Order: sequence, then structure tokens, then C-alpha cells
Amino acid sequence: MLTIADKTFHSRLFTGTGKFSSSQTMAAALASSGSELVTVALKRVDLQDQSDDMLQQLKTEKIHLLPNTSGVRNAKEAVFAAQLAREALQTNWIKLEIHPDPKYLLPDPIETLLATEELAKLGFVVLPYIHADPVLCKRLEDCGTAAVMPLGAPIGSNLGLKTEDFLRIIIEQSRVPVIVDAGIGAPSHAAQAMEMGADAVLVNTAIAVAKDPIQMALAFKMAVEAGRMAYLSGLGQQGTSAVPSSPLTSFLDV
Amino acid sequence: MLTIADKTFHSRLFTGTGKFSSSQTMAAALASSGSELVTVALKRVDLQDQSDDMLQQLKTEKIHLLPNTSGVRNAKEAVFAAQLAREALQTNWIKLEIHPDPKYLLPDPIETLLATEELAKLGFVVLPYIHADPVLCKRLEDCGTAAVMPLGAPIGSNLGLKTEDFLRIIIEQSRVPVIVDAGIGAPSHAAQAMEMGADAVLVNTAIAVAKDPIQMALAFKMAVEAGRMAYLSGLGQQGTSAVPSSPLTSFLDV
Amino acid sequence: MLTIADKTFHSRLFTGTGKFSSSQTMAAALASSGSELVTVALKRVDLQDQSDDMLQQLKTEKIHLLPNTSGVRNAKEAVFAAQLAREALQTNWIKLEIHPDPKYLLPDPIETLLATEELAKLGFVVLPYIHADPVLCKRLEDCGTAAVMPLGAPIGSNLGLKTEDFLRIIIEQSRVPVIVDAGIGAPSHAAQAMEMGADAVLVNTAIAVAKDPIQMALAFKMAVEAGRMAYLSGLGQQGTSAVPSSPLTSFLDV
Amino acid sequence: MLTIADKTFHSRLFTGTGKFSSSQTMAAALASSGSELVTVALKRVDLQDQSDDMLQQLKTEKIHLLPNTSGVRNAKEAVFAAQLAREALQTNWIKLEIHPDPKYLLPDPIETLLATEELAKLGFVVLPYIHADPVLCKRLEDCGTAAVMPLGAPIGSNLGLKTEDFLRIIIEQSRVPVIVDAGIGAPSHAAQAMEMGADAVLVNTAIAVAKDPIQMALAFKMAVEAGRMAYLSGLGQQGTSAVPSSPLTSFLDV
Repeated sequence: MLTIADKTFHSRLFTGTGKFSSSQTMAAALASSGSELVTVALKRVDLQDQSDDMLQQLKTEKIHLLPNTSGVRNAKEAVFAAQLAREALQTNWIKLEIHPDPKYLLPDPIETLLATEELAKLGFVVLPYIHADPVLCKRLEDCGTAAVMPLGAPIGSNLGLKTEDFLRIIIEQSRVPVIVDAGIGAPSHAAQAMEMGADAVLVNTAIAVAKDPIQMALAFKMAVEAGRMAYLSGLGQQGTSAVPSSPLTSFLDV
Repeated sequence: MLTIADKTFHSRLFTGTGKFSSSQTMAAALASSGSELVTVALKRVDLQDQSDDMLQQLKTEKIHLLPNTSGVRNAKEAVFAAQLAREALQTNWIKLEIHPDPKYLLPDPIETLLATEELAKLGFVVLPYIHADPVLCKRLEDCGTAAVMPLGAPIGSNLGLKTEDFLRIIIEQSRVPVIVDAGIGAPSHAAQAMEMGADAVLVNTAIAVAKDPIQMALAFKMAVEAGRMAYLSGLGQQGTSAVPSSPLTSFLDV
Repeated sequence: MLTIADKTFHSRLFTGTGKFSSSQTMAAALASSGSELVTVALKRVDLQDQSDDMLQQLKTEKIHLLPNTSGVRNAKEAVFAAQLAREALQTNWIKLEIHPDPKYLLPDPIETLLATEELAKLGFVVLPYIHADPVLCKRLEDCGTAAVMPLGAPIGSNLGLKTEDFLRIIIEQSRVPVIVDAGIGAPSHAAQAMEMGADAVLVNTAIAVAKDPIQMALAFKMAVEAGRMAYLSGLGQQGTSAVPSSPLTSFLDV
Repeated sequence: MLTIADKTFHSRLFTGTGKFSSSQTMAAALASSGSELVTVALKRVDLQDQSDDMLQQLKTEKIHLLPNTSGVRNAKEAVFAAQLAREALQTNWIKLEIHPDPKYLLPDPIETLLATEELAKLGFVVLPYIHADPVLCKRLEDCGTAAVMPLGAPIGSNLGLKTEDFLRIIIEQSRVPVIVDAGIGAPSHAAQAMEMGADAVLVNTAIAVAKDPIQMALAFKMAVEAGRMAYLSGLGQQGTSAVPSSPLTSFLDV
């Protein structure tokens, strides 16, 4: 089981709520995924309206809501958004997303560090979305981050673990959980992250835009479990020459 | 369900029997994998001795034995080996492996085509292990092969789908089942092959040499199912710029 | 200097004549490339007309013509085409291209081996275009091939050395020159092939379709020379952790 | 020609002085490289001793010295080191290297931004070594950086452009020169960076540890020029299916 701050999770597949065709499809896909941590953009929720359809779908016993700050441009806005979210959704967990660039949505390391520091002081459980930058991860640890969420590739690109070499270093060095976020476009990508020793993955686009989001969510669930199991079962080494699995001594010579 | 020649398979994970630490571990891992088609090297089996330990372990109702010709150096030897196997193991299925080179164990395209043609005429169900060569695959089809088994990387290397670009072409063009064989070193590799539309994968080394082969076999089982499910559920496109899963319009502007 | 059969070459950049916007541009680009071996499709040349414009452009002292069999579908047609070419162009050199599939233009290993064997017996200097199949390369050697021309990626795709892992094996094992053909889309790809120890590369599309083919030809010339020089100068090992090029002992502590 | 701050460069290959077997070999290799900007670690130079051998070797008309701050752990130490360097070497150019981690030598984004801001105010021409983080690059621009030096892979690893996807974004968005630094292990890597549109590359380890550093320096020089020329000559698109360079219509049908 994975523990982050005060919570434990059976599922290592975290999900999001964007891009689904309907709230009903979303709810069914999230149920199929087995996810216990679901991120939701503040703006997407009508904070005043407790009958908000999406929010109602997410209010199950199993799912823990993780509001995110998508849309903010700096640390100050992020802190304000986190406070809004805490009040509205009754949670001190916050997924910090500060990405000023509208094209690639890549995170700002400086503002993210500043906001993490401030939010940790204010009692938040902070999960920052960041570039796969090992030194930044260590700095965030020093500021009290609850986990780090390095990207595999730009959000929504489905490109997989383009940052693999740096994710390995982050996983090797981190003292907080490492959750690979963004870019995971197929169950094989999720399995790969888990095989490398990541603690969890966050998947949204690849489930939401699938032709069948409910089945795709299940495929991701299984792939994450398979990847984790493989990590624990001890994968073999990679080699450059072949090692036969069948004997080569020819029985025909006898 | 996957159909090859006269048989149907629930499981798309085919396995092998080499490199396990004991026959007991092998049997437990194969059971854990859910595999219904298991390849066995002729030399490994004592054909005269029906009490052969490994063979006994494999004689379950669920498992269909697939003898392989590992050790032969040309078509003539392969045909002879297949006939031996048919008599000893009472099956006309044969995994054709003709790899004269002892270092990389790469298959010989010429001898493999010749042997496939001859064996098909002799009533065998032929599954040839080959380089990921799309033209060779079409030639094998014309000779009556039951399936094609292109390699991902050298046998036992665990390097994954190094031939990805050519596997895609083979899958696109093939009229017989495509089984990715050799090189699959982690569940993520198996999932990737299935996501691409492969009909099945064959895994041996990666399970047999794992620290915990029984759990690893289960991890592969789940990854293969996840990959197949993702293929059927319609994976999204890959892109180069980001597509936000959360809205960018800032709620802070309101 | 590179020797193939009875000829020696200063330049390890071989080129082709397809896809240029005009014969004049082609001639200027080939001059800029420094290439001494230039392949030409039989069909492109009007064999009856000695005033054929392209052919005239290629008749320089420096350039050795290498007719290719592009368009043939099997060994028999290839042998006939080679004989036509020998008569028309007064050369017993032939680039063997047998690719029945019109979409990916991948070569047929079986027909290529048959044609190589036959043509070698007929006194031709055979340079066969093939998949990056190490075992096929050894078979071609046994048949008297003058060189092997494994592909990096499908013709005209510009994708680079997608077959890198198998090219390494081919280079390691080959006793005849290895010329990487097809897929080379940028000077960096050509340099990479040479750094790996390839004897030469053949580039056509990437030069012909460049905005400035003459400058691009020069860029390829330099990259091939750079790659060869690097191979001879002993490249360093790749590592996974950093090795500082500057000292880490802090001068600030003093 | 490349312009950075007040200087123009004919050569786009920047080099370093670490790891050479002797000062003489270093000087010969640098001459062979044609490099006009050479980075030198402060600690490596005996600042008091104007007869320092390495320094004497570098004092040519052609070479512009670029002191680096390797060894410092934060912005404050970096600013102090830069000031020391300015006094000792009579240059206000500084390569900023702040990498607290001794294993992978990855740069600290926060301290680097702080130091850049401070040094720019103090009149330095700052060239910061950074992770390939596109948002950090924009932040550095806003602080007055003279260029950005994103890494391809960890220093000394020779792994090439592992950050390729992010380097593309940086090059697309940057208003200051982009110099790819660290990880470039072969001339093909340098050519690739230039083909992508990088303004320059910095190479040290791959030259210094080659069996023949002088020839390797020349190979890099040529590869950088080839890559730049290819960038300017308009590389073709990459495709997934083949595009024939020779005609397919069979002349045998006639």
C-alpha cells in the first residue's frame, strides 16, 4: 500500500476528470479504474453549487478528491486557489499546477517551489506537478512537499516516458513518493513507470479520450498492478547478446 | 479469443520452459501465467522416458505443448526434428527455430522458409521464429504458415521491442496471427506489443530469471490482458504539443 | 580508403539520382557530395539514347555508375535487368533491389539471395539492398556478394537508424563492406552509421528533396567524414552517471 | 555567424578544458576544433600564477576564455566565484554551473535563476548551464541571460540528446542563443543538435577522453558545420511509409 501524508491507497493509479464526454462516462471510468485519488480542476467545479453534477459523481466513499490549481500563473495565485479549494471541498490536499505557457503547459519550477513552501507552511498536503528535474525534486523535499509529480511528456501528448533517464534518477534519490504525471498515453507507459519503481502514476487524457473510456480505465488499472508486481518480483538484466532459453547442443548429433 | 489453425486460446501469453531453477517452479509459474501454449525444446525432454519430470509437469489439460526445434541448423534438420517431436509428443504443432549463429541466436530466413514450406505440406501447424521482416512474413503466409513469430530483440536480451517500426508493418499486412517472440523483458514490453495489435506474445526468459517467477508470470498475464484491452478500447493519438486535461481559463480573472 | 571488389573509393558517401528537380541540380549536388559511386535506376535512363540528359550529367571521370534493379519483383527479373544494365552501361556492378511491396519498398530476402548467387556466378559485382538481418548477410557472403546494404528504415522515410541494434551485429560479423542504405534522413544519421563502423552510407532522398540540395550534399559529405574520423579516433564509453569534466573540489573552501 | 552579447563567433563548437591527458594535447585539440569559446574551471587555474601552464596554452588571439563556476553550491558562491574570475581573467563572461549533487552533476534551477539575475545586474554576460526546462529558459531570458545552455544528458555520460523533445521546445521559444551542453558524446549528437536549430554546442568529455583527441576535435568541428548547414538547407520531413527514390514502374513490362 502507498502512503502519502496521512492517507493510504490500495490503488497506485491516480486519475483526472478532464475531457470526458459526460459526467456519467467519467464516473463509470473512474469506478472501473479503481482509482482512489482523483484530481479536479477548480474552475471545472461550480464551487457555489453543491448540486454540481460532476462533483456529485465524485462524492463516493472510495474516492479522495485532489483539487488542482490549473489556470494559475504564479505562486501567489496558486496559494489563493488552494485556499479556495480547501474551503469549498473540505480538503487540505492540493495538486499544484503552475504552467504559464499555454502551448505546452510545462510547469514553472520557481513559482512551484515558492508555492510549495508557502502551502506546506499553511498546512497543505502539496503534490506539485513538475518537470522531471532531479534537483528540483530535492528542493521540494526540503520545503515539505508530500510527493513529487514529474512529467513523462507534455500534458495530453500521450508520448510516454520521454524523460525516462531523469525519472530513474528522481526515483533513485527521492525520499517522498514519486508519481509520474503527464504524457502517459497507454497502459504500457504506466507499466513501464511502475517497473522503474515509481510509486504511482496519474492518467487522465489517455482514459478520457479513448473510444471506450471504461474499458481503457480497466486496462490502465491492470497495467499499473502488473508493473508494480514486476518491480517487486525482480526484473532481469538487459543484455546485448542473446542468452538462449532453449539448449543449443544439437540432439541431432547424437 | 485467439484462433490458430484448429485451436482457440483464451490467453494471449505464450510461454517457454527454459532457464527455470526447477521443474516445480516452472510448473507453478506457468500455472500463474495462465498460458495455454507452452514451448519446449526437444533436447530438454527425454523422449524415451515418459516419466521425464518436466514433461510430467506440463501434462495438464489446459496446456498445449509446442515443441521447438532449437538446436537445428538448417531446414533438413528442422523437418527431421519436427517429425521426431510429432511422434514423441503426439502433436503436429511445431515452433520452428533455425538459428545457426550461437551468439545472437538470430533466425535464418532462407532455411526457415524452406522448412515451413516442407512442414506445411507434411501436415504440420508451423509457427516460425523469424526476424521482423515484413516481406518474409508474406512469403511464409504463401507457404501455409499458421502464424508468424517475429522477434522484438535477440533471445534472452530483455531489450523490448527494438523492431517496433517493422512489427507495425507486419501487423498491418499479416493475414495470419502475429506473435511477438524474443526480447520481451518486462510486462510493459508485452503490453506495448498487444497495444500495437499483436495477436499474442511469447515470453520465457523474463519470467524464468525473475527473482520471483510465479509473481512475474502473473504480472505478464495482467499486462498482456491490459494491452489487448487497450488495443480494443481505442488508444488516443500522440501529439507534439500539449492538450490540457484541465481548463486553462483562469478562474482568478472572474 | 574503401575497397569494394576491384575499386577503391576516397568517399564513403554513395548517392542516388532519384527525386531531383532537374538533371542540372542533380549533377551539382552529386559534385558537391564528392560521391564516387552513384546509383541510377535502369528505367530512368533511356538505354537506347546515348544523349540521354541524366546519363550525360553522370558521365564524369570521377563518378562510377551503379545501375539498380528497382522495379523488378523477383530474382529472375533482377538477373535479366542486370544483364541489360551491363550491356547498356558497360559495368558489371549492380545494385540489387527486389522489393515487391509497393508501400514500404522492403526487400525480399529469398529472391535477393537467389539473385545474388546467380549474378555472382555470372561475374557481377553484386551490392544487394536488404533488411538489417545479420543471418541473411552471412548467407550473402557465402554466395559471393561484394558488399551488403542493410536498411536503416524504409526508403524515403528519413527516419534514421531504426535498425541500429541489428546494424551493430552486422558490422561486428561481416567480412564484406557494410553500406547502410535507406532511411538516412539527416547528416547526423549518416555520421551515426559511420561512428558505429559502417564502411559507407547511401543517401538519396534526403539530399534530393532538401530545399538546397547542393548545400545538403556538402553537409552529408562532411558528416560522413566526421563520423568516420570519430570511429577511427576512438569514441568514449557511454555511462549512466555523470563524470565531471570540471573539478568539484570547491575552491571556495580554501 | 553567431552573436552572443558583444561577441561574434565563426565556430559554433564551444569546448572545455577538463580531462585532457596533458596541457599540450589540450591545446592541440582545441586548435583542431576551431573553437573560439573555451570554458575553464576556476579551480583548475592557479589564479595567482600567471605562468600557469594551462592558462598559457589558452592565451591565443583566437580563443575567448569562458570561466565556469563548477564547484559552487548556490547562488551566493556563484556570484563570488564570478567576481573572482572577472578579476583574475579579465572577462565579464561567466558560465554558471551550480550543481549540488555530486553523482549526476545536475544543475539547480532555483539557485541558477537567482545567480543569473544578480550577475546580469552586475554587468556579467551570463551563460547558465541548466536542465532542458523550457519554462526556466524563459525565466532566465526575463532576467537578462545572454544565452541558455540546456543539457542533453548528464555531464560526461556521452548519452546524447536524451532531452530532445524539450530541446525542440526551447529552440522554438527562445529569444536568446541556445547552446546544448553536456551529454554530447559523438559527432552525430552534435550534428543532431545543430540540425534541430541549436545555435551552438559545448563539447568537452567526448573530445578529451577519445583515443585521439586531436582528430576527434576535428570530427566534431566538421559535424557541427554539417549539422548547421543541413539546418539551413532545409531537411525533408520524416514519414512512416516509404517514398521511392527510384521509379517502380517496371521496365520489364514493356
